[in-house]
Formats: sequence, structure tokens, C-alpha cells
Amino acid sequence: MNLENSVGIVQTQFFTIEEKIKFESGIEFSPITVAYETYGKLNENKDNAILIIHALTGDAHAAGYHNENDKKAGWWDNLIGPNKAFDTNKFFIVCSNILGGCSGTTGPSSINPETGKPYGLTFPVFTIEDTIKVQKKLLDYLNVKTLYSVAGGSMGGMQAMQFCISYPEFVQSAVLIATTSRLSPQAIAFNAVGRNSIISDPAWNNGDYYDNPHKPDRGLSNARMIGHITYLCEEAMYNKFGRRLQNKDSYDFNFDVDFQVESYLQHQGQIFVDRFDANSYLYITKAEDYFDPTEKYGSLKEAFKNSNAKYLIISFDTDWLFPSSQAKEIVNTLMQLDKDVSYCEIKSPCGHDAFLLEYEVQEKIIKSFLNNHLKGELDE
Amino acid sequence: MNLENSVGIVQTQFFTIEEKIKFESGIEFSPITVAYETYGKLNENKDNAILIIHALTGDAHAAGYHNENDKKAGWWDNLIGPNKAFDTNKFFIVCSNILGGCSGTTGPSSINPETGKPYGLTFPVFTIEDTIKVQKKLLDYLNVKTLYSVAGGSMGGMQAMQFCISYPEFVQSAVLIATTSRLSPQAIAFNAVGRNSIISDPAWNNGDYYDNPHKPDRGLSNARMIGHITYLCEEAMYNKFGRRLQNKDSYDFNFDVDFQVESYLQHQGQIFVDRFDANSYLYITKAEDYFDPTEKYGSLKEAFKNSNAKYLIISFDTDWLFPSSQAKEIVNTLMQLDKDVSYCEIKSPCGHDAFLLEYEVQEKIIKSFLNNHLKGELDE
Repeated sequence: MNLENSVGIVQTQFFTIEEKIKFESGIEFSPITVAYETYGKLNENKDNAILIIHALTGDAHAAGYHNENDKKAGWWDNLIGPNKAFDTNKFFIVCSNILGGCSGTTGPSSINPETGKPYGLTFPVFTIEDTIKVQKKLLDYLNVKTLYSVAGGSMGGMQAMQFCISYPEFVQSAVLIATTSRLSPQAIAFNAVGRNSIISDPAWNNGDYYDNPHKPDRGLSNARMIGHITYLCEEAMYNKFGRRLQNKDSYDFNFDVDFQVESYLQHQGQIFVDRFDANSYLYITKAEDYFDPTEKYGSLKEAFKNSNAKYLIISFDTDWLFPSSQAKEIVNTLMQLDKDVSYCEIKSPCGHDAFLLEYEVQEKIIKSFLNNHLKGELDE
Repeated sequence: MNLENSVGIVQTQFFTIEEKIKFESGIEFSPITVAYETYGKLNENKDNAILIIHALTGDAHAAGYHNENDKKAGWWDNLIGPNKAFDTNKFFIVCSNILGGCSGTTGPSSINPETGKPYGLTFPVFTIEDTIKVQKKLLDYLNVKTLYSVAGGSMGGMQAMQFCISYPEFVQSAVLIATTSRLSPQAIAFNAVGRNSIISDPAWNNGDYYDNPHKPDRGLSNARMIGHITYLCEEAMYNKFGRRLQNKDSYDFNFDVDFQVESYLQHQGQIFVDRFDANSYLYITKAEDYFDPTEKYGSLKEAFKNSNAKYLIISFDTDWLFPSSQAKEIVNTLMQLDKDVSYCEIKSPCGHDAFLLEYEVQEKIIKSFLNNHLKGELDE
């Protein structure tokens, strides 16, 4: 536990939305319990809140430690804390687990109170817009009157973008990192093959596996391995593994692991199944595929036109999952609308993973953006 | 059946190597039956033969038709035939199914004569060098005294390259298309996840499934889907599919196919399992991963130093599986060795698949190379 500039020991909290929420599919759904954490204090004007949104497989635990023996800090601890980029001395930070997730917020693995059994595939398919509705309910519950900022990387960035589109009056600024306004067909393809891997695992059993001795771990693990290939880039692969063999000097001439890159992917797949639910993976990747404000609002310009937020957009030059060209499309759209937008392409050898690794440069950029963009307006 | 400039109706033939062949792993193995086809005639000097080598999942049927009702010509029919790039009026063309394959040449699905059962995983793991030994035996059997050329795309190019390295005196020229002297860690990763998909299919049953009612079709199909993502490029994906939906106007809000790209991949996966054996996929991708003359001979320069072949190397600008940079590494090595090398990077929107699609430009380049490089020396 490293308490320097840490928010310290924190607890995940829970809030339940009892009223029905209308999903984009038309289905009305309740109740939804939301797992969330907060760091820092909401000020009297209720205008210093920042919503942090996690990526595909993240959770509400963005910073600090859960107990004294906790070795691993929250997933964005490097950026959230006293004097850090998201400075908890100034800001009230909120992070919640996504709708449909498996880390405390209601999802397909949650018990359906009407049946006493896990929802499985009876859980409604949802969209990024639906996840944002849930986040907004949480902020209302927490008495947040306006968001000083909303920030997220990768799929978290898509949600942050949708927040600006869905609640333009509510958001003062947005930090969109390593993200896109719509998945490319190639990114959809990777998600589709990942889902296919889960669905074709006999243990998946049409989503009804929670009471079975075997879960669709093989399918989920394989899906995760595919994902990890897209999170790294060619350069990162060469730097991390090259063609080096794993604990051997020559080929094994069998089908065990030969290369370090194989070992890395297998390990990533294996540790993932211990913390993630296969059905959640299906639902959340589907929401990602469906996200497309250009299609939904007629154009990206139309989608953003009511937003008055100030934008900081960050991309990474080696990110081939959500490449800089996609970030630039958002930047150009916002510029055409005469919005206040800053853009930074960070050089990194880390590919898409860079948004979770390149802290130092992101810290400087985000800190400067947050401190300057509404200078003097914040009641500290 | 389109007989214009076609080699017409052809038959796959078989040749069995009875003596033991020593594999790179140290294992000695026999018998090996080789499925092959030939087009054109071997001349009196036995010096007009061209060996065509297929890619990962190809077969011996490179040109012509198998019968009068055959709708589909051989896989490289556009380039092989009278007056085509590989001109059967001039050349004696040989193409055989790879060692370990499932289209006639002995592989894991073949019957082990000692047990009367399919080899399955008792089939020895082999390398590209081993596949070339088998091809050389076939050429000896056919009385070929020297190869006018050896040509292949993708993994076929790797084998053609190995032929030049293994039998430098025997090869007069080589046409290496969309290929590499070693897989990048990213390409290994894609192969590894594909294999993992097969191995984690319970129907795979440790490779022993030939007598079972269910074969590891799901795992093999998923492996093929992953492969197809790498054969296309981002641009090809946009051109072919974009984010268009498959036979619908709006999202289904379930886990069926929504996007055209999903439908395409599923179709490719489904048709593949009808023609390919899951164990062959494991063995052949492993041979691909193991191919690395730089490592084996100390350097690529050392590997090629005894070769006196003239080289034509072709890459495609949008191929990200075996990118042009890898082709250029081979070209530079050959230039440093003062070998006769021509290089052409073809602009194409088709990605790696281009080697099977961009016929017109390849036809011109290859025809010119083959007609000129040994001009006057050929006894027609």
C-alpha cells in the first residue's frame, strides 16, 4: 500500500434506482443497483464533481485501497488523489461500475428479484446511452448539480462523450482519451469473434451457467486474449516479447506455449475469468458496437451541437484499435461547431493500453486542462 | 467452367515416399503420401518446372477443373494456364498439398498404417523445412532436374524462400508474394489464439475426434474468423462492410448477427469447417510460427548466402499481417548479398488477401519476370 498522494482506504458504496428506466431498446427495467466510489468532497455549490468512467472491464474502484493489506490500488490511482491530475483536494470524484457489469452494478449475473435467479440472457440488451442514464441517476442521488468534468478512456471515453450529448447543460468539460465516436468494422469484428468464442463454449449454455460447476471460462479467456492483441501494438509486442521463447532455448515441437507472447496472452486470459462474467462481456461489447452518435443523430455535428462543454481529447499514435484519425474526427467536428477543444496526440510505444500506462504525460495535460478551463469559477 | 486459357480438366495425383524422412524435430517419419497436380509438360532438359506452393489452407488444385460440372477453378487459376503468368505452354507447373495438410497429403487426419487409426496428435510436429524436403522428393520423383522457379504467397512464400535456402543449387528463381522471413509477435499471437480456440473446444478431445459424432467445428470456425480479420485490412473492411447492418434497418438488441462484418466472418468460419481439419490447422500454423531462418542460420544474410536464384518479391501496401517492411528486409538482405532481386510493392485496398485477388497487376509483373530472367536459356 503506497499512501503517498493516495485517497487512502475507500469503500465501494451502493445505490439502488427503484423506478423503471426506459432503455433505448424500449424495455423498461428496474431495479438497478449501482456500485460506486467517491473521493474528495462535494463543495457547497455542488459544482466540483468529476465523473470518472471506466473502460470495458473496469470497475468502480478507481483510486485508493480497500483495506490495509490491499496491495493493488484502484485502476486509475496514478491520476486520482491529492495533487494528482484529478485532484481530490479540489474535486469530488465519482466512479461507478457500468450497467450490465459484474462488479457490483446490476447485470446479467445479478439475481432477478422476481425469479430469485440470475438474469442471464433475460437481462435487457442496453446501449451506451442507457449506461449514461444510470450514471446520471447516481449523480442526482449524490446531489451533484453540475459536472465540472466527465472523463474516461476507451469505452469510458465513449460514455463520457454520450454524457455530453445526452446532458449538454449538465457538463462543463470532458476528457476523452483513446476513444472513438464509433467502432470501425475491424473493431466490431474483434468484438464479434470474442463473443462468438463465449457463445460457442458449451459451458455458456445459452447464458444460464451460474449454478453449473463449469462456467464458460475457455470461451471468455479466448475472448480476452483476442482483446489483448488489440490493446497492444506491433511495436509494444516487439518491445515486450519479440520472438523470444518462454523459459526454453529451443522449440518444444508440441502444442504447448513456445513463445513469450503466447504465455502472456494465456496468462491474461486465465486471470480474467476469475474477475469477469462471460455474459457481462457479451452485453458490454454489444453496447460498444452499437455506439454510433453519427448514425443516431444524423451527424456527429448534430450530436454535439447543444454541448457547451470544453473538451480535452487525447489519442496515442500507436493505438490501432481507436486510432488518432478517429480522435481527430471528433476534434474536427467540435471545431466546426466552434466549441472549445484541445487535442493532444501522445507518442507512446504502448498502443491502446497507453491510456492506462502513460501516466506522467497524461497527468500534466489533464491537470493543466482541469485547472485552467474554468479558472476562478470553482468554489474551493 | 471457363475454359478460356484454362489448363482444362485436371486430376489430383498421388505419390508415396516410402523411406523415412528425418524431421527437424529429430523424428524419422514414413510413409508420406503427397497429393499433387501438374500442368504443362516437362521438357527434355527437365529444366522448365515451376513449383507453386499454396498458403495456409490451400491444396494441390491450383488450376483447371476437376470435372465438367466443376464450377470453381483451382485457387490460382487466374495466374496458371496457357499464356497466363505461369504459362503452361512453356512451363511444367507442379503444385502439391502441404505435409500435414488435409487435402490428400499425409497429415494428422490420415490413417497411421501401424494402428489403422488416424494419427491425431501422434503425427509429428514439423517445420517449413520439413515441408520442403517433401516437396523436393516429389520433384525428384517427377524427374525435375532444376526448378525454373518456385513461387508462393503468404505461407507459400515462406516455403518458397526455404526452398531457395535448403536447395540453393536447384532453384533458378523465386517469386515470393505477401510473405515474411519470420512472423511478428502479433502474427504469432493471432495464430496462438486461433489454436487456443480449437484446443479449448471440448470436441477437440486432445486431437482424437475423427470417429466422434462432433468435431471441433466451433473452435476451428472461430480460429478461421480470427484469421480472416488479419487477411483483410481496415480499408477493405470499410469498403466491404462499413458499419452496415445485415438484412435489417435497426439493431436487434440481442446477440444474433447485427453487422455485415459479423455475418461475413461467421460465414467464412462455417464454410471452412467443411473443408479443413482442426488438427491440420494446429500443425500448419505451428510450422508457420517456427519459421525463422534469421534465428536458425544466425542471420538472414547467412541463410541466403549460397542461393544463386533470381528473386521477385511482391508485397501489398495494406497488408498488415506480412507488411511491406518485412518484404523490404528480405530485399535489402539479398541486395547486400549482391543477388539479383526485383521488388514491387503493389497498391491495393485488399490487405493480405490481395495476393489472391490482385491478379491483373501480378500477372504482368510475374510474366515479365519469368520470361526475362533466364531469357534464351529455356529449351521450349
